[in-house]
Amino acid sequence: MKAGIIGATGYAGAELVRLLSRHPKIDSLVLSSVSFEGEKFDDVYPNFQGRIELTLVDAEQAIASAGVVFAALPHGVGERYAKICVEKEIPFIDLSADFRFGDDEAAYSAWYGKSHQHPQLCKYAVYGLPELNRDRIKELAASGRVIAGNPGCYPTGASLGVLPALAEGLAKNSAAIIIDSVSGVTGGGRDPSRSFHYPECADSVTAYKVGSHRHTPEIARNFAEMAARHNRPAPPVIFTPHLAPMNRGILSTLYIPLAQEWHGGGSDTKILPPGAELDEKAAKIRAVYQDFYRNEPFVRILPQEITAATNRVRQSNYCDISVHLDHSGSTLIICSAIDNMVKGAAGQAVQNMNIIFGYDETSGLEMIPALF
Amino acid sequence: MKAGIIGATGYAGAELVRLLSRHPKIDSLVLSSVSFEGEKFDDVYPNFQGRIELTLVDAEQAIASAGVVFAALPHGVGERYAKICVEKEIPFIDLSADFRFGDDEAAYSAWYGKSHQHPQLCKYAVYGLPELNRDRIKELAASGRVIAGNPGCYPTGASLGVLPALAEGLAKNSAAIIIDSVSGVTGGGRDPSRSFHYPECADSVTAYKVGSHRHTPEIARNFAEMAARHNRPAPPVIFTPHLAPMNRGILSTLYIPLAQEWHGGGSDTKILPPGAELDEKAAKIRAVYQDFYRNEPFVRILPQEITAATNRVRQSNYCDISVHLDHSGSTLIICSAIDNMVKGAAGQAVQNMNIIFGYDETSGLEMIPALF
Amino acid sequence: MKAGIIGATGYAGAELVRLLSRHPKIDSLVLSSVSFEGEKFDDVYPNFQGRIELTLVDAEQAIASAGVVFAALPHGVGERYAKICVEKEIPFIDLSADFRFGDDEAAYSAWYGKSHQHPQLCKYAVYGLPELNRDRIKELAASGRVIAGNPGCYPTGASLGVLPALAEGLAKNSAAIIIDSVSGVTGGGRDPSRSFHYPECADSVTAYKVGSHRHTPEIARNFAEMAARHNRPAPPVIFTPHLAPMNRGILSTLYIPLAQEWHGGGSDTKILPPGAELDEKAAKIRAVYQDFYRNEPFVRILPQEITAATNRVRQSNYCDISVHLDHSGSTLIICSAIDNMVKGAAGQAVQNMNIIFGYDETSGLEMIPALF
Amino acid sequence: MKAGIIGATGYAGAELVRLLSRHPKIDSLVLSSVSFEGEKFDDVYPNFQGRIELTLVDAEQAIASAGVVFAALPHGVGERYAKICVEKEIPFIDLSADFRFGDDEAAYSAWYGKSHQHPQLCKYAVYGLPELNRDRIKELAASGRVIAGNPGCYPTGASLGVLPALAEGLAKNSAAIIIDSVSGVTGGGRDPSRSFHYPECADSVTAYKVGSHRHTPEIARNFAEMAARHNRPAPPVIFTPHLAPMNRGILSTLYIPLAQEWHGGGSDTKILPPGAELDEKAAKIRAVYQDFYRNEPFVRILPQEITAATNRVRQSNYCDISVHLDHSGSTLIICSAIDNMVKGAAGQAVQNMNIIFGYDETSGLEMIPALF
Repeated sequence: MKAGIIGATGYAGAELVRLLSRHPKIDSLVLSSVSFEGEKFDDVYPNFQGRIELTLVDAEQAIASAGVVFAALPHGVGERYAKICVEKEIPFIDLSADFRFGDDEAAYSAWYGKSHQHPQLCKYAVYGLPELNRDRIKELAASGRVIAGNPGCYPTGASLGVLPALAEGLAKNSAAIIIDSVSGVTGGGRDPSRSFHYPECADSVTAYKVGSHRHTPEIARNFAEMAARHNRPAPPVIFTPHLAPMNRGILSTLYIPLAQEWHGGGSDTKILPPGAELDEKAAKIRAVYQDFYRNEPFVRILPQEITAATNRVRQSNYCDISVHLDHSGSTLIICSAIDNMVKGAAGQAVQNMNIIFGYDETSGLEMIPALF
Repeated sequence: MKAGIIGATGYAGAELVRLLSRHPKIDSLVLSSVSFEGEKFDDVYPNFQGRIELTLVDAEQAIASAGVVFAALPHGVGERYAKICVEKEIPFIDLSADFRFGDDEAAYSAWYGKSHQHPQLCKYAVYGLPELNRDRIKELAASGRVIAGNPGCYPTGASLGVLPALAEGLAKNSAAIIIDSVSGVTGGGRDPSRSFHYPECADSVTAYKVGSHRHTPEIARNFAEMAARHNRPAPPVIFTPHLAPMNRGILSTLYIPLAQEWHGGGSDTKILPPGAELDEKAAKIRAVYQDFYRNEPFVRILPQEITAATNRVRQSNYCDISVHLDHSGSTLIICSAIDNMVKGAAGQAVQNMNIIFGYDETSGLEMIPALF
Repeated sequence: MKAGIIGATGYAGAELVRLLSRHPKIDSLVLSSVSFEGEKFDDVYPNFQGRIELTLVDAEQAIASAGVVFAALPHGVGERYAKICVEKEIPFIDLSADFRFGDDEAAYSAWYGKSHQHPQLCKYAVYGLPELNRDRIKELAASGRVIAGNPGCYPTGASLGVLPALAEGLAKNSAAIIIDSVSGVTGGGRDPSRSFHYPECADSVTAYKVGSHRHTPEIARNFAEMAARHNRPAPPVIFTPHLAPMNRGILSTLYIPLAQEWHGGGSDTKILPPGAELDEKAAKIRAVYQDFYRNEPFVRILPQEITAATNRVRQSNYCDISVHLDHSGSTLIICSAIDNMVKGAAGQAVQNMNIIFGYDETSGLEMIPALF
Repeated sequence: MKAGIIGATGYAGAELVRLLSRHPKIDSLVLSSVSFEGEKFDDVYPNFQGRIELTLVDAEQAIASAGVVFAALPHGVGERYAKICVEKEIPFIDLSADFRFGDDEAAYSAWYGKSHQHPQLCKYAVYGLPELNRDRIKELAASGRVIAGNPGCYPTGASLGVLPALAEGLAKNSAAIIIDSVSGVTGGGRDPSRSFHYPECADSVTAYKVGSHRHTPEIARNFAEMAARHNRPAPPVIFTPHLAPMNRGILSTLYIPLAQEWHGGGSDTKILPPGAELDEKAAKIRAVYQDFYRNEPFVRILPQEITAATNRVRQSNYCDISVHLDHSGSTLIICSAIDNMVKGAAGQAVQNMNIIFGYDETSGLEMIPALF
């Protein structure tokens, strides 16, 4: 099958090229770019020299011969390509935010400042987090018309870390869940700017868009959905993204107040070092998580002695999750680590393709993390 | 005056050498080290070549001629030097945890696994966070017998960010305050180990000691003390430290649920983008913070458009604080940034010395942050 | 085929595990480690969690069932395993320096401070730089007894950059060739030490072992051999390694005085900016290089506008070479970039295995470089 | 005295602000900027919050009230300000290349692509490398009309490392000297661009402008001048700059073929490890260097066991020099390390001011290097 990539010269697009060019079911690629149309891909990205010598075409050309289309475009740009693909029954996997909100036009327009030009497309769209929506993805795929709205990088790590707690009744109803995330700089994309200028972000950590990051409603929606499936109220969500001096990776530290039955008799204000009973409680919760994800190929629940770290998932499609408690045992603390360019973008897009086409879900995604 | 530094060859000790060697009131130094006794300091730290050519002596020698003694030792080692100094009425500024807990022997022994050999010294000890205890430091200094228990690096950034909220009634009584902190690698000290081996921590972020870090009780005690001063209950505290690939700096993101009167009518679960009314509320809270710290030389409350970042305090004694709200306006989010080696260690120790001796509090600490 | 890896828990060993576990001709691994015998591999390297759950055995066990044995041991340790393998006619691929010097016992013992215990093994040994010795590797492989002395990381990048100049008469006879190389920190291995402690090597560059690095004789020998094949004198060699704050990669800048016929009429002391004629000369030399390596799968001669950079070969087995001239046109300046853990260690070892067994030389080595 | 800084919002300008604001002879600053005129300096650089709250003015205003003017502008822009200053007899310290070439209009225009608008100014200009031209700087200062053409960052480190060898007859006449330098990213300035975009330069090393960097003629001129002073021919110069993932610092590795009398009887092609006689020769050469710089406050010749590293001069005005030989003893290898923003730019400019005004040359430049 030939895969088309629209927006192939952004970082997520280039990562797609890298992954798809070695995918066993993809025999060729067609790449499009507005900025570099007519140039050779490996001139834009010399690390691909001699490997991907394709000339960049326009989006329509990319779609014309492709059996699957990936779009790695800024939000609000790709809708018309989605429309063509839906009409031609070509699966469309969209890495922008355009199709992440289903029919919740209000949320999309409130946070992204625009509304859909083709709102009727939303009925073919599914939020492409396989661990949440695998069945729905397959269902739409079977219908021939499918748009997978590939999740945002932060929502992926946050959701995978929190969903089991909501599904299994670990989380205290209606208590706010805090998502404190640290991202590598590739999350900012390929365009140079002051924030991502080496001397201004090297050797430094900062928060950004505190209280106002667009991934907030996406995270909240995922939490609400899982809660609703289990007849629980949607939890309030607080999300703070940070930038750290690393290239890839997102580490999310997730604070989930425990439900009364998990909370135990501990006092919130005691400040004693944690003892063995805390380890035991953590072990029980870890077992709940392991069970929840027992069939998931890309979620690893780490053993007690290992804390999630971004370098242990580097260059892979894994989401590593470590399970902790605060010293008083009242709050579940989950650390989740993903590679923002793989499970947080291109890898998850390939995973969606695998599901849509019925391939082995790990096809082309067997990478073992590179510690360095 | 001659300053003695015991444990001069650790990172905090060497930073003290650097700061004190340029302090206008210090005309000479005497340095001690167990590991390197008899060697020249600038052979141990070649960056000091030609600047600090002192031979390292033993601790007793360092005390013998000093008018002030700094100890940058592992916890549990420096007590006997503190005893000598108290007896000789030499101010003793201790960068270990030994004198941070006052007479709360229980907390100290529970978290540090040992008890004081000379518990009677605790009555001369003051927790050396000037913004919290300046008067008490002066009071003890006047008595001639003073041990300043220099705060831990994490507690410094966390406390400075949270104390105004507790003092001014911003924080919701009894609601847990979350301290999510990211530290540079110098916080781990000078001894090589796997965790701080370049290839294992470069280009990666991880949490560590989740729920079990020793700075937890110190943070909780500071919060409790400020709350008590204002007749409020001690808030539960949840603290998670992280390691980021940078040398210096701690960024703490602090989640403080707002008291009802500050909370406003917003719904916790609405997920709309923040509007102007949120900015206005943040501005009011910012004004509260500015007022609280109006006389503090080393705390900077940042304007709305600037978020605290570790590179904006690098190599300085500042604590930068930025004031934010979550999107729903229910939780105050404070970002505080310090240089862990300066305000988080050596600089704060010098600040304590300045207070004890009645020097201008900024003497020797006028460094402007180096963005890079 | 089952591959045995002795010394699997060092960085080169772990990289071999990562590469071989996905090699199409290797169906299983057996791993040995002295330090971690009895432990599970993925407990030592949690990035392998759920992927390589093998228990580490001793070296003899690893050899017992393997069809090929890789040794990633300190020099002077692996000889006895080589002996067993030769006797059992199992190809032995050695990443240490032990078998890089053929029968030049003098060079080996002078630089490595020891002599071979089993010098008779040297007749089965070949220096495993495929671009230099592919035929000899195949020849020994055919004999059934083969020890591939996998090249050092620096000699790989230096040799690939210089050999064409020596073979094709570009280099001035008897003029010293300078190899100025910058390595990432993984080159120092997994054991923590002051030199590789994050705070001491982050954000800094230094040279080390200037004039005394053990890779010097290996580089000189390679140059001499190629020169001798073309009846030219061995050039003097000057080698300076540096350490840079990056994980992977070696960039070598190679200064090769041009032979008179290439030198042209330019004056060495003119200091004018280079003009079009210099570009033309560089283009001619580039063509020589391209021709020299026309059949090599892992050497890429970069076009004029691109300079070799370590991030363009990251995680791949490529050696990228860019061809330049100094401003006066008298000296050829080659930049070569490799990933020190792949082409500089584990990848090249796999390449040797592929050659020995007659597999496609790129099997298991098709990785496209990850720019980040 | 009031100091004016034109171009205060570039990195070199901001570093000047930081240094001059703490200089004992400077009581106030006036800052100009084209891009940010009318804005407050600490809004442009929030690390200066509360410290430098000056509003940025235009260049003429800055000159109007200043007793000394620093220009940190792109080349070709500052000449007219130099003219005003010369006419008003205000010392002008220029960090651009405009006044580095004296009356060698040919070199300047060949490499910088423009000629002087006011060539008559060149007679007031001196190349501001104090270790080379201190007397000339003083002489012009005495005349009242002085333009100090502050050296380039690379030429500073290269020249300080090579000049003693040329002055003292260590260098072989007419043999090419190779300057292989590695710079931190701040050398590229404050404007974001692809080359300095974090994800493209982090964790990677590359060469750039090989054979064509504009600092080449400046280096060559310095070498030629010192050689001429000692009646020796100008040596050919080969210069290759590299970019490394660090913020500050330049490490230059300098290859200087030894004159016959220093060369000794060693064979260039022997490849034995260096022995004690090499250490002895290096010690003799080190003594020559120490003697050459015995009165220089900012050059440190390191002892045998220490190699120059950029983190040992960080944030200081030092140039550290370590003296080595290649293994055969035929080539002197000097490593020189500077902080590119201090001795390579702003610090050296302050040093020039100190000389011009007869201040203690180390005034305002007493910083001890920060290892991290």
